Amino acid sequence: MVKVVVDAMGGDEPPETVLKGIELALEADKELTVVVAGGADVVEPFCKEHDRTEPLVTTEVIAMDEHPAQAVRAKRDSSIVRGCKAVAGGEADAFFSAGSTGAILTAATLYVKRLKGVSRPCLAAVLPGLDGHQTVVGDLGANADCRPEMIVQFAEMCGALAKVEAGCSHEPSVGLLSNGTEDTKGSEQSQTYFRALTEAAEQGAVAFAGNCEGKDLLCGDYDVIVADGFTGNVALKSMEGTAKYIAGQLKAAAKRSPLNAIGALLIKGEFARIAEDLSGDKHGGAVLLGLRAPVLVGHGKTSPQAVKNGTLAAVRCVNEGLTSHVAAACAPTGAEQ
Amino acid sequence: MVKVVVDAMGGDEPPETVLKGIELALEADKELTVVVAGGADVVEPFCKEHDRTEPLVTTEVIAMDEHPAQAVRAKRDSSIVRGCKAVAGGEADAFFSAGSTGAILTAATLYVKRLKGVSRPCLAAVLPGLDGHQTVVGDLGANADCRPEMIVQFAEMCGALAKVEAGCSHEPSVGLLSNGTEDTKGSEQSQTYFRALTEAAEQGAVAFAGNCEGKDLLCGDYDVIVADGFTGNVALKSMEGTAKYIAGQLKAAAKRSPLNAIGALLIKGEFARIAEDLSGDKHGGAVLLGLRAPVLVGHGKTSPQAVKNGTLAAVRCVNEGLTSHVAAACAPTGAEQ
Repeated sequence: MVKVVVDAMGGDEPPETVLKGIELALEADKELTVVVAGGADVVEPFCKEHDRTEPLVTTEVIAMDEHPAQAVRAKRDSSIVRGCKAVAGGEADAFFSAGSTGAILTAATLYVKRLKGVSRPCLAAVLPGLDGHQTVVGDLGANADCRPEMIVQFAEMCGALAKVEAGCSHEPSVGLLSNGTEDTKGSEQSQTYFRALTEAAEQGAVAFAGNCEGKDLLCGDYDVIVADGFTGNVALKSMEGTAKYIAGQLKAAAKRSPLNAIGALLIKGEFARIAEDLSGDKHGGAVLLGLRAPVLVGHGKTSPQAVKNGTLAAVRCVNEGLTSHVAAACAPTGAEQ
Repeated sequence: MVKVVVDAMGGDEPPETVLKGIELALEADKELTVVVAGGADVVEPFCKEHDRTEPLVTTEVIAMDEHPAQAVRAKRDSSIVRGCKAVAGGEADAFFSAGSTGAILTAATLYVKRLKGVSRPCLAAVLPGLDGHQTVVGDLGANADCRPEMIVQFAEMCGALAKVEAGCSHEPSVGLLSNGTEDTKGSEQSQTYFRALTEAAEQGAVAFAGNCEGKDLLCGDYDVIVADGFTGNVALKSMEGTAKYIAGQLKAAAKRSPLNAIGALLIKGEFARIAEDLSGDKHGGAVLLGLRAPVLVGHGKTSPQAVKNGTLAAVRCVNEGLTSHVAAACAPTGAEQ
C-alpha cells in the first residue's frame, strides 16, 4: 500500500504523457496509490476517472530552464515544491518527477530533508553492464565540488542503492572514476578522493577497488562507481550523447540504402531496448540518495513507459527500505551533519 | 616528399599489423617515405622489400603498461625514443605510434620538444558530429591538472588542428566542457577556466562560446571543445565505453533471433564505419599539439587501416603546416615557457 506523488507537470513532454505513465503504473501495481500533482484542469479529471489516485492541485509550474534555487523559493505552489512537502508531511511515501533536476534537488533538500549524518544528497543511477551486471553510478551532478568525505559517503549510499535496485547481494565493490586505472592516476582533486576511499576501506566502511575509467561505467566490473558531480555529469552526458550519435547515424544510414533500411528496421526494437537500458529509464532515471524519503528524477524527455518505470522504482525503493539502507550505510562514518 | 617515422613495435597488435598499415599508406601516397622503427628482424626484411622505406633499427620496446617516465628514461633504444629523436634531429618530419600514450608524450616532450611559448602539449582528437560537422576535443589526458592559462592555450592549439584536420575555415568556436551550459555551471576549477577563456575572448584570442556538456562532444555545434586532461579523458573513455557497449549488445541481440541476426548483418558495415569515426582512427587517433613537429598517437588496439590513416594524417599535418599554425595560434597570448 505505497503512495507515490507523481509530478504531472514535470519534463519536456505534455502532462498527458505523464498521466498515461501513471495509468500504466496503476495497472502494473494494484497496491499502488498515486498522488497526482499539477494544475486543476490536468489532475482533477484524471483522478475522477481513476481509482487509487488523489489530486494534489497546484497553481505554479517550474520550467526546465529556470534557476533552481530562485524558482523553488518563488514558486511555493509548484508541483515540485508541493510534491516534496507532501512527502515531508507524511502524506505520501515517495516523489517522482521528470522535471528540472536542479529544482527537485533544491526542493527535496529543503523540504524532504537529509538523513541525519548525510552531508549532501547524491544523484545516482543504475547503469547496465555488458555482462548483465549492473553498476550504480553517482554523483551525476548534484554536487559539482566535493570534499573527500562526501565521496566516501556517496560510495556508501550508492552501495545501498546497488543492494536495493541492482541486485547486489555482497559488500558492493567501489571504483573511483579517474583518467586511468593505476593508483597514481588522477587529478590532484581525485587523488584526495582516492586517499579518503583508501582510508575508509581500511576501516571497513567500503570495499574500495581503486581507480577506474570512463569505459568501465558500462562494463559491469564494479557494483558502484563514484565521482564528484562535475565529473559524473560529464561522463553521463558523454554516454547519452554517444548513444544519440549512434542512433542518429544508423537512422541516416537507413536512408542511404534499402538494405541498410531493412537492417535498421529489423534491429529497431533491440536498439530501442538498448537505448532505454542506457538511459536509466528502466529504473526511473536517477535517485536522490541521502534524503528522508525516496525522491526519483526522470529524464525531461520522458515517455509513459519511463514514468511507469519511475513510479514503480519509487515503490520498490519504499518497499525495500532504501532510506533505512542508506541511513545504515552512512551511520558508521557519516559523522558530519 | 614527406618522411614519417612509424613505430612498428607500438600497440597491442603484432608488428605485422603495423607493417601492413605502412604498406597501405605507401600505396596511397606515392610521395611518402616511411622510416620504420623497430627490431632488426621486423624492419630490415620489410624495408628491403619496399621502396620509400628506411629502417630505424632499435633493440628495446616500451610495453603498453610500463611507467611512462621510467620507461623513456631506461629504454633509450626503444622505437618510441629513437623515433622522437629522429624527428628532433630532422631525419624525419613527423612521428606516428600506436604505443603507450604516456611514453609517447614523455619522449616527445623530452626530445621533439615544445614550441616556444607552449606551456604543455595537449592531446587532441577530431570527433565526428551528428550533422557532419567535426569537433576537435582536447586535452584528452596529457595533463590531469591544468592552470587556467593552459586551457586557453589548448583552445588556441585545438583551433589550429580544427583548421588543418577538421575543415574549419573561420575563427573556431570554443566550448568549455562542463556539467551544464549556463555560465554559472561548473566546478570551482572549471569556473577558473571559464573566466580565463572569457578574458581571452575579450582580447580576441579565442571565440569562446561558453560552457557545454558531454552530449555536445558529438553534436557538431562547436569547432573546439576544451577540458583539462582529467575531464577530457573521462569523457573520451565514457564515449568509447558506450560505443563498445552498444556494439556488444547488438551482437548479443543478433544471437537471440534470426531476424535480429539478419538486421545486424545488414548494418554491420555501417556500424563499423560509425565506430571507426567515433574512435578518431580516421584521423590517426590523437595528435599531440604544441610540439616542434607533428606527433600522432594511435589506439593501442590498432589495425592496418588505422595505421594507414595515422601515417597519412601525419603527412597532412606536415603538408598543411600544423606546427606553424599552432605556433601562430599560441603567439599572441602564449607568454609562458
